[in-house]
Amino acid sequence: MHQPQTDLPQRLLTPGPTAVPPRVLEELAQPIIHHRTKQFREIFSDLSQQLQQILGTQGPVLSIAGSGTTAFEAAQVCLARPTSQVITIASGKFGERWQDVYDRYAEAMALEQVRINVPWGEPVPLAQVAQALCEHPRASVVTVVHSETSTATVNDVRSIADLTRRSDALLIVDGITSVGALACEMDVWGIDCLVTGSQKAMMLPPGLGFVGLGKQALYRLDQIDYALPVYNLDLRKWVASYQKADVPFTPPVPLVRAAKVACNMILEQGLDAVWQQTRRRAEGTRAALRAMGLRLISSHPSDSLTGAYYPDGVDDSIRHRLRKKHGIHLAGGQDGRGGCWKGKIFRISHMGYVDIEDTRAALLALESELREAGAIGSQTRALPAFDDVGG
Amino acid sequence: MHQPQTDLPQRLLTPGPTAVPPRVLEELAQPIIHHRTKQFREIFSDLSQQLQQILGTQGPVLSIAGSGTTAFEAAQVCLARPTSQVITIASGKFGERWQDVYDRYAEAMALEQVRINVPWGEPVPLAQVAQALCEHPRASVVTVVHSETSTATVNDVRSIADLTRRSDALLIVDGITSVGALACEMDVWGIDCLVTGSQKAMMLPPGLGFVGLGKQALYRLDQIDYALPVYNLDLRKWVASYQKADVPFTPPVPLVRAAKVACNMILEQGLDAVWQQTRRRAEGTRAALRAMGLRLISSHPSDSLTGAYYPDGVDDSIRHRLRKKHGIHLAGGQDGRGGCWKGKIFRISHMGYVDIEDTRAALLALESELREAGAIGSQTRALPAFDDVGG
Repeated sequence: MHQPQTDLPQRLLTPGPTAVPPRVLEELAQPIIHHRTKQFREIFSDLSQQLQQILGTQGPVLSIAGSGTTAFEAAQVCLARPTSQVITIASGKFGERWQDVYDRYAEAMALEQVRINVPWGEPVPLAQVAQALCEHPRASVVTVVHSETSTATVNDVRSIADLTRRSDALLIVDGITSVGALACEMDVWGIDCLVTGSQKAMMLPPGLGFVGLGKQALYRLDQIDYALPVYNLDLRKWVASYQKADVPFTPPVPLVRAAKVACNMILEQGLDAVWQQTRRRAEGTRAALRAMGLRLISSHPSDSLTGAYYPDGVDDSIRHRLRKKHGIHLAGGQDGRGGCWKGKIFRISHMGYVDIEDTRAALLALESELREAGAIGSQTRALPAFDDVGG
Repeated sequence: MHQPQTDLPQRLLTPGPTAVPPRVLEELAQPIIHHRTKQFREIFSDLSQQLQQILGTQGPVLSIAGSGTTAFEAAQVCLARPTSQVITIASGKFGERWQDVYDRYAEAMALEQVRINVPWGEPVPLAQVAQALCEHPRASVVTVVHSETSTATVNDVRSIADLTRRSDALLIVDGITSVGALACEMDVWGIDCLVTGSQKAMMLPPGLGFVGLGKQALYRLDQIDYALPVYNLDLRKWVASYQKADVPFTPPVPLVRAAKVACNMILEQGLDAVWQQTRRRAEGTRAALRAMGLRLISSHPSDSLTGAYYPDGVDDSIRHRLRKKHGIHLAGGQDGRGGCWKGKIFRISHMGYVDIEDTRAALLALESELREAGAIGSQTRALPAFDDVGG
């Protein structure tokens, strides 16, 4: 009997989009309600409060239709002061993207970009950030990626926030693969603007970006007395609507409803528990990959996802086999200015709706495929190592 | 026995968001697939071909995450030439919005805006467009709203395209409440860029904007040799990805899947049939409202939706009663620079997943509420008038 391969159970262990729980999917299928109604405003208001808890802020958390990139671009444009310097930290593809974004506005806003570029796989050294802040006291913004998805590396955002707090610069943090996976406490740490996306640890489909704004960021928005070169992404509009439990443009109603359900699941479980379980999956995975003799891509691995180099004689086709034979989806490598990892590495996500069983299944399948490719010996190493640490 | 009012069948006759068919809702609830897969590329490629048919173009039709405003802003910024004039036609709130968008970019792109503002409820006179084109031969863009939702008025886009075709200016058309409701044939009419949104006649939830690009628009994008002051909305990125059945940023996967199902429903029924049925609902509604003694808000009504003034002694609370007692959702009036219609008018949509029965139910309920308010006599007029024309 032929069974079509797409009928295999599919385990989406890619670092976004990630799997979405059935009850969140069901919420997407509810009949459409109008957004200018009490019913929608109540949902939106509940969601906003849940998001405040998840981002760890008393400030507004805006829900903007689009990708994580849309939301981060909004923060970058609205919070930079014209004719100022912006300090942009890049330790991977996404940090580089935020540099590209500021390039686009450099002329229109007379911005001077102070780039800190770190080798892929390394976190940004704090001393470099301190030095840049010292040399550029007029800098209006610092951007940094908390968990750099392309290199599976975590940056020490808490310490960076300690530095920026002593300066006039606002800290904008890309928490797209950290919020809901790693401890990231906006107000306690002193992050001025924390951006995340729906399709990672939030257990939602892609389509919403979330922007948390601290007091200093709100004050900066209030101070704007020039023509911001954006319309849809003018955060002042979103903040004004937010105060009325509303949005300035027609929102993706099903996603907003689903977001409330997903956030509720996260908060029911408890943020601490979610972070701890993510860490267990990550620690177990790192131990298992090392036991198989693989080399991790990061010197400071993020717990959101793990990346490793392929061993000699193995290439990206192994991901194809994992998908076809085992229904297991891993991500490959990405390319950028600071690295060229396509075909050389793979990445496995620990975020969101994934559990120890999924992770073990992926590692077991990976080990068996590596063995079949002759890249590792016959002894089973992955699971014992995983269970020692992550079980 | 108490029955909660939200358990009434709800008829969403608002001009966006509109009702979504059950099988489109079901598609939203399918497990998430990764967007960098053959499976997704096939869906995306099918959708793109369907959209080409619906917009009537051989050119690419981009699917951009966000609202209709997001997509229109992208077209405005990417197609205007710096240091040129842009002719912006406004005959209602949405036309005014596109003027506001260009205001934001006026400084950054050194644009001079040539505004044509028409009284609300009127279409733009062709002579004014011809004159503006004649007086501003260096204009790079003309923007116009096909079906102005705030005033339920249709502009003669076909004739405007005849005018712009003879100039160097590109015509960008807001088809957000026209595509899939009214005849709007991009290539045949000579529209350079046609923008629409998911949540109107396309029978989808909000969250996607569609941008069709004709040959001249693609050529204009190719000619860009300056820093466009946008990143996420840089249409060149979207066009380059589109050629590979891909998108530059993580797309709202469930909405893209659902869009394929909804477009398929439209094309199975046939565009001509969809337009004809929309027209019937509109003609019947106009006849019914007139028979009740109500005055329409538009001198050139769009078939996408119908608007009328409340009779003396009636205010917006009637919409509340229609919702609570009958489960019928109509829209109220909007405010803008050229009009102030909040509390003075109501609007009823004929777009998308709505049929003659829904429309008749709404008119019947409206008539009964107007009678109860003492605003009309006891004789039943609405349905006979509707059936004479629209039945």
